[in-house]
Amino acid sequence: MKKHNFSAGPCVLPQSVLQQASQAVLNFNNLDLSLIEISHRSTDFVAVMEKARSLALELLGLQNKGYQALFLQGGASTQFLAVAYNLLEKKAAYLNTGTWSNKAIKEAKLFGELIEVASSKDHNFNYIPKNYSIPEKVDYFHCTSNNTIFGTQIKEFPSTNNVLVCDMSSDIFSRQLDFSKFDLIYAGAQKNMGPAGTTLVVVKEEILGKVSRDIPSMLDYRVHIGKDSMFNTPAVFPVYVSMLTLQWLKDMGGIPEIEKVNNKKAEILYNEIDRNPLFEGFVSNKEDRSAMNATFNLTNNTLQKTFDNLWKEAGINGLNGHRSVGGYRASMYNALPLESVQVLVDVMQELEKKA
Amino acid sequence: MKKHNFSAGPCVLPQSVLQQASQAVLNFNNLDLSLIEISHRSTDFVAVMEKARSLALELLGLQNKGYQALFLQGGASTQFLAVAYNLLEKKAAYLNTGTWSNKAIKEAKLFGELIEVASSKDHNFNYIPKNYSIPEKVDYFHCTSNNTIFGTQIKEFPSTNNVLVCDMSSDIFSRQLDFSKFDLIYAGAQKNMGPAGTTLVVVKEEILGKVSRDIPSMLDYRVHIGKDSMFNTPAVFPVYVSMLTLQWLKDMGGIPEIEKVNNKKAEILYNEIDRNPLFEGFVSNKEDRSAMNATFNLTNNTLQKTFDNLWKEAGINGLNGHRSVGGYRASMYNALPLESVQVLVDVMQELEKKA
Repeated sequence: MKKHNFSAGPCVLPQSVLQQASQAVLNFNNLDLSLIEISHRSTDFVAVMEKARSLALELLGLQNKGYQALFLQGGASTQFLAVAYNLLEKKAAYLNTGTWSNKAIKEAKLFGELIEVASSKDHNFNYIPKNYSIPEKVDYFHCTSNNTIFGTQIKEFPSTNNVLVCDMSSDIFSRQLDFSKFDLIYAGAQKNMGPAGTTLVVVKEEILGKVSRDIPSMLDYRVHIGKDSMFNTPAVFPVYVSMLTLQWLKDMGGIPEIEKVNNKKAEILYNEIDRNPLFEGFVSNKEDRSAMNATFNLTNNTLQKTFDNLWKEAGINGLNGHRSVGGYRASMYNALPLESVQVLVDVMQELEKKA
Repeated sequence: MKKHNFSAGPCVLPQSVLQQASQAVLNFNNLDLSLIEISHRSTDFVAVMEKARSLALELLGLQNKGYQALFLQGGASTQFLAVAYNLLEKKAAYLNTGTWSNKAIKEAKLFGELIEVASSKDHNFNYIPKNYSIPEKVDYFHCTSNNTIFGTQIKEFPSTNNVLVCDMSSDIFSRQLDFSKFDLIYAGAQKNMGPAGTTLVVVKEEILGKVSRDIPSMLDYRVHIGKDSMFNTPAVFPVYVSMLTLQWLKDMGGIPEIEKVNNKKAEILYNEIDRNPLFEGFVSNKEDRSAMNATFNLTNNTLQKTFDNLWKEAGINGLNGHRSVGGYRASMYNALPLESVQVLVDVMQELEKKA
């Protein structure tokens, strides 16, 4: 029996995608060769890469708008550095909403002056700062759209005339946004897009080429664009599985349709957290709650063992909170079925009856 | 019917490894979860990473000798840059044996003065330079052990008191060497080790921490060592398949045993290239011929179509030479069965009978 997988990432993927991926490892496209044994320059794999790139732009509504999609290696952690290498000439502004913003700031500091426009560190990042001002004429403004660890999510992005850069690792393809407001979006694949090992970078070409420093080839977006995301051997399997997952999303109606499901899942779970006296949410402002990662605690910690046994018996996986927050975290990425959330809510209600 | 896969990389992998990998994508370790859906911090995946790291050191004979093994993202192309970032304070010496050495030199030049101790560019890299001298007191000496594109391989490594760095992407784990002579070895997985998407770095810890520049976290070997190769989410599937492939190699007797098979394969093919009047080898000095990649041409180009049809009919894949050399290239990595080489030799003899 398949588990109800609430893992924060790497995380649940569509079952049909897993089946196709498993088959491709044995025999890809009836070539009598494994996907992972063929040249990345072969017609069959080039088609995979091109389809992945084009699906990413199509789903975000960014086709023919001056954007390029790249599937690179190194995770969002490498993008913390690459963004600064490519865009930071003098100073940049960052919004600090948690661990990942913090890491992005730390890496970018090596390349120029950073202005932290606001931070929610004062309350262990349990809210999204608002009403901050972004200095005019910085090289770019950087934010993190969703904070996996703390369970917060930016609902309204600031208006700015600066270049807008966003780490969307944990909520890309989950909700409708005007993605054309962003100049650079990056996202590790291992939440809504595929397995760990590839990172999507969507960049508006016109913002590139403006810094004076030399950029090493592997960190230079223009080098990767010039080689159609194949400057060096890409992570073949992760890119293939990402392509399958993006196709799965397109087939079900794209972002507008998955957003409805995601909102429904979040509504069911947060309603139970608010209703059930045994639980409390971690995030202080309800409007900042993430639809991807719900963080919550028991109001009575003596029930911990009972609750842990209950959800494990129900076939639930990956519900422990991150060590820096504690408690529980239910990650409800695109591929998590609605019924898994219902199973979790049932367990929460069962605990209430037992307590 | 499975193809005879002479692809230069990504390339043939052991069939038993592909079967295990395919199964793990559906259900890993009987967890009722896919390998690519579980947390990289889970006990099951941490065990995979630790086993991969320890197998790499064990097979190279480098356990308990001050070395660390890391599985990083970004390919050897990222190591061109990371090596310089971590080791190049003033100047380094490079041996130029082809495309990959060239690229390594290009990236390192951003970080200090480079001395090219010798180059075989004068004859399109069809030999390995010898009798060059390495300046004393450079930060390190860098060489490429095997040149996939040109089909040359270093058989005798120079003696040097400098730090010795080697890109072994295309022949690591294929032959016995005193690996303890090297201070840093790196290798993209997609030849003898696994699928594209992970890169092995084996580094002697004592050489690190000696440059004065700030190193971004993702490029800092000490950061990755400090986090047991899990500073950020690793490329889960490529690391897993690499671990399986290293285990396969250990089970068959390790490098001493695979070297015998590799030498036999190379001997059979090169003997035919030398014997058959329709073929000639690309590499000028026979002692420089690679046991991994045999590059050769037809002596009569009008036979090209006939030959191409013959090998394709025999179920051979990936025999076309790289565009910068032309002709043919038979890559005979660890997982290529001896019988595949025999099939190729049969085809070459069939062409001779027809011509």
